[in-house]
Amino acid sequence: MTTQTAQTDAQVRADDRAHVFHSWSAQAKIDPLPVAGGEGSSFWDYEGNTYLDFSSQLVNLNLGHQHPDLVAAVQQQAGRLATIQPSMANDVRGELARLIAEVAPDGFEKVFFTNGGAEANEYAVRMARQFTGRRKVLSMYRSYHGSTATAISLTGDPRRWANDIGDNGTVRFFGPYLYRSAFHSTTIEEESQRALEHLEQTILLEGPGTIAAIIIETVVGTNGVLVPPPGYLDGVRGLCDRHGIVYIADEVMVGFGRIGEWFAIDAFDAKPDLITFAKGVNSGYVPLGGVVISDRIAKHFDDAPFPGGLTYSGHPLACAPGVATFEVFRRDGILERVRDLGSRVVEPALRAMAEKHPSVGEVRGRGLFWAIELVRDRETREPLVPFNAAGADAAPMGAFAAAAKEGGVWPFLHFNRTHIAPPLVISEEDLVRGLGVIDEALDVADGYTV
Amino acid sequence: MTTQTAQTDAQVRADDRAHVFHSWSAQAKIDPLPVAGGEGSSFWDYEGNTYLDFSSQLVNLNLGHQHPDLVAAVQQQAGRLATIQPSMANDVRGELARLIAEVAPDGFEKVFFTNGGAEANEYAVRMARQFTGRRKVLSMYRSYHGSTATAISLTGDPRRWANDIGDNGTVRFFGPYLYRSAFHSTTIEEESQRALEHLEQTILLEGPGTIAAIIIETVVGTNGVLVPPPGYLDGVRGLCDRHGIVYIADEVMVGFGRIGEWFAIDAFDAKPDLITFAKGVNSGYVPLGGVVISDRIAKHFDDAPFPGGLTYSGHPLACAPGVATFEVFRRDGILERVRDLGSRVVEPALRAMAEKHPSVGEVRGRGLFWAIELVRDRETREPLVPFNAAGADAAPMGAFAAAAKEGGVWPFLHFNRTHIAPPLVISEEDLVRGLGVIDEALDVADGYTV
Repeated sequence: MTTQTAQTDAQVRADDRAHVFHSWSAQAKIDPLPVAGGEGSSFWDYEGNTYLDFSSQLVNLNLGHQHPDLVAAVQQQAGRLATIQPSMANDVRGELARLIAEVAPDGFEKVFFTNGGAEANEYAVRMARQFTGRRKVLSMYRSYHGSTATAISLTGDPRRWANDIGDNGTVRFFGPYLYRSAFHSTTIEEESQRALEHLEQTILLEGPGTIAAIIIETVVGTNGVLVPPPGYLDGVRGLCDRHGIVYIADEVMVGFGRIGEWFAIDAFDAKPDLITFAKGVNSGYVPLGGVVISDRIAKHFDDAPFPGGLTYSGHPLACAPGVATFEVFRRDGILERVRDLGSRVVEPALRAMAEKHPSVGEVRGRGLFWAIELVRDRETREPLVPFNAAGADAAPMGAFAAAAKEGGVWPFLHFNRTHIAPPLVISEEDLVRGLGVIDEALDVADGYTV
Repeated sequence: MTTQTAQTDAQVRADDRAHVFHSWSAQAKIDPLPVAGGEGSSFWDYEGNTYLDFSSQLVNLNLGHQHPDLVAAVQQQAGRLATIQPSMANDVRGELARLIAEVAPDGFEKVFFTNGGAEANEYAVRMARQFTGRRKVLSMYRSYHGSTATAISLTGDPRRWANDIGDNGTVRFFGPYLYRSAFHSTTIEEESQRALEHLEQTILLEGPGTIAAIIIETVVGTNGVLVPPPGYLDGVRGLCDRHGIVYIADEVMVGFGRIGEWFAIDAFDAKPDLITFAKGVNSGYVPLGGVVISDRIAKHFDDAPFPGGLTYSGHPLACAPGVATFEVFRRDGILERVRDLGSRVVEPALRAMAEKHPSVGEVRGRGLFWAIELVRDRETREPLVPFNAAGADAAPMGAFAAAAKEGGVWPFLHFNRTHIAPPLVISEEDLVRGLGVIDEALDVADGYTV
């Protein structure tokens, strides 16, 4: 019995348009590209077009399309034991939990598995609320934490707006972002210090005793590849200690190698109490996410029941490519390669683009995770398109993207930015080629500057 | 590269206890069974014990452990294209959406895929709120709808209690349950009519114009296998029509064959606007759930953007065993077999147990989904253990379960009930044998009656 036969572009489009309801979309206004296959850093459609994936799909495909070791791990586990309920014990689930604990900071031994990043943040917040007996959670403007009810309420970008239908106990604050500082800072040190003062004021005025957790993307992802300035995350730790607040590090997008570390916190002075992950843990070959739990919080739940769970927590088929991910990362030196390519290839190329193109306001990032912020005017820093622009207002970014696709690169777009986030296994040759395409596409963006 | 080597019970236990944080548990008070493998209706541990799975894991394993067609579908898809982002079009995703639409009622053409049942209910509620512009949702006491923030707030069982930390816009009502009627009914007709009157009163007193949706498990699952009485669901439809309320049928547990229908609504007078599913759609071999959307609601989102989404919506690896599920169901006549085994084997066996055992208060169900409600006293209907009992209070149910396991059957337990919910592929021989074990274990329960 075969479950799938070769199809044509027209057949795939027909089923999709008739029957598939798409995320975040007005269904009549989209035109989803039928994808026929993928390998490594590329995927292709049914019409003979191949794209270098500079977005790693939704920044989850850290080991690329159809990595042979991950495919083999899925196939082997499918033949062994596809699934077993969470209340039983399973070899590959336990092995992946141990591997994650081994690369987590000292004092993190337990892992709660979920189906993805949104659920990971849901349950991290639930743990913090149970642990502290408090309700409020502080999260950043310019953040994304997922789309289920708690996760979307934490989110500080426009995807939350239509979901703001009640009091979810979330309070938002401004994070450090020197290029568009909320604090009128002129240096990175000033931005770090002022952002901490702002967070401290927010805590004091909200009532420290009411706040269960602060959740922060260690490097803010979709909302701008905002790398935390020196001292900031350590300062957050200090505020949490002073006020009995749980610090949740959201590493759904940035964990598992994106910036060349197992967890991005390793690159900064960050000492969270809970770490959430998903995406890169198994490159999304099977839905998987989770929470890494510090001993202090885990101990609370030795005797207090944790009031949450899901049918597929610790799904064996999802855990198997997670175990394989550890093997591939170590065998192939993925973390070292990401740091090397980031500093030796990407950063110099982007700095050169920033010199050359009047449309480039700022480039920033680390490892294989970079943002190019496009502006109409480098002096005023006016974005190339307005915040949350759609339709005709977003045309300049659409023109940039079309040029990139014409050159064979599938770019990541968000507002007035493109991000450079290819699979971590991308060849140096492909990386250089792709950056060249972006460079040329920026000529198109330059045409929209003042 | 192998991702997994043969392990021992001790090794699996060691990793589990040190590193895996389990759902719904005080972590120091559990003793998860290491499972070494499974096939069809059975699974086994590392110590040579094999159990007939009368719970289908968490009532998700409709086609049993390691079904060769589902395993092949997963392995084949893993080799073709494990994953692709939701904004693109994918052959197997479109095919599964079409297959689901084909067995859904007329006027349901679109499917939004999620990672599981909780998310399915989250997004169904979101659709209803966007569609109506209203906020409140009515759900039943004695229900379970999942554990993420919206889903747990809909839930009407004690798993919600610790999560009741704010106003989520949910209002709960009592559903029909003749054996323990909230309405002092004495006949099934009276129960149906009074339950509808109660729902209508609740709607009127909450304010019809404030209510976005009513969500009902078509057959209430974990909270009792409560089969809706004649006329009830049709009456719900009438109330929804009268007040512009969206009717959401939660078929996460009961869809895809559990009672011998593709969707359980087909067995009743139920005409919902949204149908949620998960579990049986692919037997949980890969996390998958979703919402089947009526044209009326789908049309709203042709032009209005749907404010929700997830990285793994319509995950190809999850959809492939879904497509295979349709093929197996049709080739092997699964729906017919469930109806036949239910009425010819299970029902007579349970009716005989009810005659024989003083601990059996009531048996009820349909297809391969039945409850045995255990009581201390058939006259007063006092439950064998108190509502939500734990520890020593739950000892009589623990003794019953131990006897079942001793006989080689892994039973489903909830409060004072055991449910009969084996894989739909169980052989008639195994089914009869398992029912015999339950019959004998009820002798133990009888020892706790007055």
